[in-house]
Amino acid sequence: MLNISIITIGDEILIGQILNSNVQFLSDFCTKLGANVIYHSTIGDNKEALFRELNYVFDFSDIVITTGGLGPTEDDITKQSICEYFNDNLILNNEVLDNIKELFKQRNRELKDLHYKQAEIPSKSIPLENRVGTAPGFLINEKNKTVIVLPGVPSEMKYIVHNSLGKIIERKIIEKNSEVIKYKTINTAGIFESDLAEIIGSKLDYNDEISLAYLPSTKGVRLRIGAKGKNLIEAQQKILNFENKILNKISKYIIGYDNNDLINLIKDNLINKNLTISTAESCTGGLLGSILTSIDGSSKYYLGGIITYSNEAKNKLLNVNNETLMVYGAVSFQTAEEMAKNVKDLFKSDISISITGIAGPTGGTIDKPIGTVFIGIAFKDKVQSYKYNFGNDRLQNRERACYQSLLLINNIIYENFSN
Amino acid sequence: MLNISIITIGDEILIGQILNSNVQFLSDFCTKLGANVIYHSTIGDNKEALFRELNYVFDFSDIVITTGGLGPTEDDITKQSICEYFNDNLILNNEVLDNIKELFKQRNRELKDLHYKQAEIPSKSIPLENRVGTAPGFLINEKNKTVIVLPGVPSEMKYIVHNSLGKIIERKIIEKNSEVIKYKTINTAGIFESDLAEIIGSKLDYNDEISLAYLPSTKGVRLRIGAKGKNLIEAQQKILNFENKILNKISKYIIGYDNNDLINLIKDNLINKNLTISTAESCTGGLLGSILTSIDGSSKYYLGGIITYSNEAKNKLLNVNNETLMVYGAVSFQTAEEMAKNVKDLFKSDISISITGIAGPTGGTIDKPIGTVFIGIAFKDKVQSYKYNFGNDRLQNRERACYQSLLLINNIIYENFSN
Repeated sequence: MLNISIITIGDEILIGQILNSNVQFLSDFCTKLGANVIYHSTIGDNKEALFRELNYVFDFSDIVITTGGLGPTEDDITKQSICEYFNDNLILNNEVLDNIKELFKQRNRELKDLHYKQAEIPSKSIPLENRVGTAPGFLINEKNKTVIVLPGVPSEMKYIVHNSLGKIIERKIIEKNSEVIKYKTINTAGIFESDLAEIIGSKLDYNDEISLAYLPSTKGVRLRIGAKGKNLIEAQQKILNFENKILNKISKYIIGYDNNDLINLIKDNLINKNLTISTAESCTGGLLGSILTSIDGSSKYYLGGIITYSNEAKNKLLNVNNETLMVYGAVSFQTAEEMAKNVKDLFKSDISISITGIAGPTGGTIDKPIGTVFIGIAFKDKVQSYKYNFGNDRLQNRERACYQSLLLINNIIYENFSN
Repeated sequence: MLNISIITIGDEILIGQILNSNVQFLSDFCTKLGANVIYHSTIGDNKEALFRELNYVFDFSDIVITTGGLGPTEDDITKQSICEYFNDNLILNNEVLDNIKELFKQRNRELKDLHYKQAEIPSKSIPLENRVGTAPGFLINEKNKTVIVLPGVPSEMKYIVHNSLGKIIERKIIEKNSEVIKYKTINTAGIFESDLAEIIGSKLDYNDEISLAYLPSTKGVRLRIGAKGKNLIEAQQKILNFENKILNKISKYIIGYDNNDLINLIKDNLINKNLTISTAESCTGGLLGSILTSIDGSSKYYLGGIITYSNEAKNKLLNVNNETLMVYGAVSFQTAEEMAKNVKDLFKSDISISITGIAGPTGGTIDKPIGTVFIGIAFKDKVQSYKYNFGNDRLQNRERACYQSLLLINNIIYENFSN
């Protein structure tokens, strides 16, 4: 297999200031090509740490990818350090300089000394074009060591990855005649990890060369199947063979595959059945609408929504009775049901869903503690409502309320709009 | 300093299936206590890799924290491997077992063999209580090696961190009489990284023991100042001394500090000036509303919004003229302005903001390519609108439209609602 390690360089990641989304993107990209990402690390902006790390990872890696530390300021040390590691020196690359000049012209900015330095790369390296920023990527191939140096700004890193990295990895897999690895994930809901594992049993019970992993989260358990092969097609066939053996045992829990989760399933179902949907949100403030419209094609089924954060808005814009709001409160079965019913009438949608609750950290009472959320759903001439208590964390409460809403929408479609 | 390394164990992170948000949380937590997080790594669920990694990181770490691989299924290898690394054996811990029994009672679930195994920990270890899941954390202290083993499920990991980790780290800092490190971040907008660096100059120009880092993103440049000290107060004083020297040079670009970004600034300004806001969203589908309500106290200023995804909804619910929609289109200055004006009237808010655009990946035309977004803002008796082109990525276009809206709101408050 082609073993890839990814080193992230940057104090901001080490101290927890930002999420390392670059490494997820790079890992996903390399894995989908069949490469074996075996290691991630993050070090500070520090030459000694980078030297130590390169010595360590080259022991078990065919390719080392670094991201970060290519900016123009004095805390950025990656380029100089990698150059020194390979006993090389920096030289001005005219191709890179032309690109920087072009960028500055487009943006009407003046070129400074700092930016000329950006056009320097190690003399032994091959530049990797970056048309969206001033930091070029570069590749060094020496004594069986391949290092690919990428910027840390996500848009710039992604530009180089899409433009150059795919070709480099595919060529290496062919050169090395490497085995490849392929994964498929089955997303389930409504079953615990241990119960799912019991139903499926040990992978040793199956005569297949596959790996199995269970990934539990608040959204359900994902089952990941992995297989190696001479090429991606062979690996895929092994996964399919295994999948066929377990499918009838677990089919009722499946809500999607790989990155296609519940929202994609709902989209497909709504479009196939020609149904429309609208939303009425209080404590989630538009989050459910934003999830329903996060994927392409959502205008085919999502008509819109009303966000009513105040009681007055619930009454004036959603026609929730003032009596309901006074007697039962804004966070109640009754309000949730009126919200769902009335938004359905306003938008003339087939299904409407409402969320009203106490996201926290303030606003809780003894009867209705923080995390209390009511969800209403209206369809045909019916309206149903449900009560939940999600916990103490504001952002998590909002997310869980939305995810629970998606589960409800999915159920209602199955139970009431079957062909 | 107290050097901490964090090892994440899990193939799901390595192959890019999920973001490593655990390591950010842990790093942020340890850094705020004054510890020095010097290293992150991620390895697969694999004993040999864990042994190699522990040998490597103990060379430069006072404390090693691991997360992941403590589940009950056969792909989870962390506990057995750590136990073997320390030449120890697993024993049933009754405290842990009682906790698991209690959890299962609460959830009305039946205890299985698998779960008894969860109650085993290395004989030399100290269990770290986990009241929200079956995987206990544990701590091993041996021959100057301290390892803290935590589960990978975020809610369980966080429970143990809040309950146990803080005390362990604080005690170690005192035991070792370690220096501590403190950071402060100044968030800026409206200035490029290189220009900001030029204004501030080299840190060598200042007679302060501080570190400086520039972190550019689509939201602006963040400047992080770091300082070491005998304790957190001394470190903080060094940061303050430096900050006072640069503050007048950069004050006009500052939009917040640390995690307090634009949304917090807007919240404070709206509440202080007693202003209310409402939203009308098309392509962002509720995302702006969800950002405005993502922080506690948002009900003091956010009244609500209308999400009008279809033209019909724009006309019927937001009273956008059908003529405007036909002549200029739903994505136009005119529609954005009518949306903003009309949602302001509906909610009777002081400020209203509207977003209409083409998020992509489909729907673009030659005149209005993907990424074209119009933002309208209504306040007092005025309405203004702006045109942007953000690019080709659907999710990024939606985010940028919302961030641009926040910048506009912030400007409008400053320019039109000053006391």
